[in-house]
Amino acid sequence: MEMNLFGSKSVSTSEMVHVGGTYSSLFLSSRDKATVRFSKQFYCPRGIFFTSSNIYLSDKAITSVGPHILAAETNCHGINGINGETSNLYSRNMRVLDAFDDEYGGVVMDTERLPESPSAFAPSLHFSLAHWKKMGKKGIWLKLLVEQSELVPIAVKEGFQYHHAEQGYVMLTYWLPEGPCMLPANASHQVGVGGFVINQNNEVLVVQEKHCAPSSSGLWKIPTGFILEAEEIYTGGIREVKEETEIDSEFVEVIAFRHIHNMAFEKSDLFFICMLRPLSTQIIVEDLEIQAAKWMPLVEFIKQPLIQGDNMFKKVIDICFARLGKHYCGLSVHQMLSKFDGKPSSLYYNVVDSKNINCVGN
Amino acid sequence: MEMNLFGSKSVSTSEMVHVGGTYSSLFLSSRDKATVRFSKQFYCPRGIFFTSSNIYLSDKAITSVGPHILAAETNCHGINGINGETSNLYSRNMRVLDAFDDEYGGVVMDTERLPESPSAFAPSLHFSLAHWKKMGKKGIWLKLLVEQSELVPIAVKEGFQYHHAEQGYVMLTYWLPEGPCMLPANASHQVGVGGFVINQNNEVLVVQEKHCAPSSSGLWKIPTGFILEAEEIYTGGIREVKEETEIDSEFVEVIAFRHIHNMAFEKSDLFFICMLRPLSTQIIVEDLEIQAAKWMPLVEFIKQPLIQGDNMFKKVIDICFARLGKHYCGLSVHQMLSKFDGKPSSLYYNVVDSKNINCVGN
Repeated sequence: MEMNLFGSKSVSTSEMVHVGGTYSSLFLSSRDKATVRFSKQFYCPRGIFFTSSNIYLSDKAITSVGPHILAAETNCHGINGINGETSNLYSRNMRVLDAFDDEYGGVVMDTERLPESPSAFAPSLHFSLAHWKKMGKKGIWLKLLVEQSELVPIAVKEGFQYHHAEQGYVMLTYWLPEGPCMLPANASHQVGVGGFVINQNNEVLVVQEKHCAPSSSGLWKIPTGFILEAEEIYTGGIREVKEETEIDSEFVEVIAFRHIHNMAFEKSDLFFICMLRPLSTQIIVEDLEIQAAKWMPLVEFIKQPLIQGDNMFKKVIDICFARLGKHYCGLSVHQMLSKFDGKPSSLYYNVVDSKNINCVGN
Repeated sequence: MEMNLFGSKSVSTSEMVHVGGTYSSLFLSSRDKATVRFSKQFYCPRGIFFTSSNIYLSDKAITSVGPHILAAETNCHGINGINGETSNLYSRNMRVLDAFDDEYGGVVMDTERLPESPSAFAPSLHFSLAHWKKMGKKGIWLKLLVEQSELVPIAVKEGFQYHHAEQGYVMLTYWLPEGPCMLPANASHQVGVGGFVINQNNEVLVVQEKHCAPSSSGLWKIPTGFILEAEEIYTGGIREVKEETEIDSEFVEVIAFRHIHNMAFEKSDLFFICMLRPLSTQIIVEDLEIQAAKWMPLVEFIKQPLIQGDNMFKKVIDICFARLGKHYCGLSVHQMLSKFDGKPSSLYYNVVDSKNINCVGN
């Protein structure tokens, strides 16, 4: 197993998915096929935050391990699902559902080997939970594909909670022990980018959007958008500019970022302002959401009343001016492949140059 | 309506929840009670990315509007759910489910007024979708509480997809029109922080974790963790240090950040390295996940083989050294209340000082 630089610890074999630990690190990780991340963040209702884990299920890497079929257990007691029956009621010839142990005392149920019918799933799930509780297991992970939606109410009745969902599945969890839930949280942030494209004539590339609030009608703004799944911040800025204006550009620096909370779906939001250098001049507007685009003198851009009225915007403009005058250094991006985890990484930092400690950006 | 600086547009009244638009903006937003965010990010399976929206439902702010009960419609045609019946089959005395129009042509179903029983929900949902399709509606939002899990398979059979889930609910969506889905994506990122705490003797505050991979056994690392829901990056770093070592500290700067992808739950990960100044000296380890903690000479810290073996780590150390020698400026944090949206915002940027363009951090 290899080690990783920041924040992640990845362990897997073809047979196991491991879960647990601490967000780790500057400096902790190992990696094979499936990825495990260690976390100190939890959204448990009990409000006690303890160290626990994130889990990533590699669809292909996991296969079932351990005893799949246990002979009838005669001494299982019901656990705290809503159903309330003890598993004695149907423990004869019952089997524990296929699952994988994780190295932190949890269980990952095998999505592909679940019974198809709710009537078969219900008693098996009840029996399995009783078994895992007896075995001292902790967090139970149950990923149900959209095709398995009929099993969702069964799991909920047994006491499972929703953890997260993506288009094709919903992940449910069950924390068996007494005491605080130590399972990791769902993703917490959206990430947006804005492209500040300034040409040699000190003109800013600006757009007007079709669907804007009446009060902002006529405002010229920089191209912005959310970054796509697994997209880089610096390429996201370039893509947004291209989509909205057809202008090609190259990344210079992240000059600032803003962090706000309780946005869409009550998530937080990080917005990175990227300074970009234009590589073309001719604007073409074909984006369905963009009304118009143009090169606008920076001075004129700043004079817009909606921009003048906000301290934050003025600060960003100050930074842009300073950066244009090379009195400011933003963060440049450096692609690195960490030996520890083999993860292609983008590290953003100021350029360090002992001979020239001022901004060495170009 | 007021305007907001970056990336969000919020609109609501007590009667409507609006959806749609563009991630907007340096500079577009309005806000009342419910929050709407404009987005250019989508996770639609069709792979075409168009501008669309995020939605935030304010539990209390929404009330039903529009006609709740429509007389029997006799000319509805079935839509592309799995059931396949046309709504003619049960359109007599059928009513459209309670919902709110949004200003971008979508519909937000009223979670609190759904039929309780699956058998009542199924025909009503089918009828309502046919009605909304006939009305030219676009995205349909259906939030089902954990107590309503029996309705999940009904919605899936009608063609709804999972959008996201949190502990108490799952959100499903249905894109009615032909053509690419323009609904916004789920949260995309986890955010971690590391606290680089260095005292005046050039000693680094380091910890050993209890649950680490065997290959990293004995490694001393800086305190790290995920930031909590709605937590600031700079307070998250301070909190992690406090939890793991009992050391009080204050935030100096974000000195760099790393961006990686395909981590837990296939989400991306942003990890911010915070330089912190210690405000106390005595270490106490009470965190269940921490084996030991101590002040370690920086030189000794760097000499650790696992750290020496990775270029990325060495770069971070270089940056720390430069910062200690004031040859490097990280990003300091500035709290601002944008007039546009009234959102408490943390803006991270280098200190700009025209008289001293070198690092003016302390």
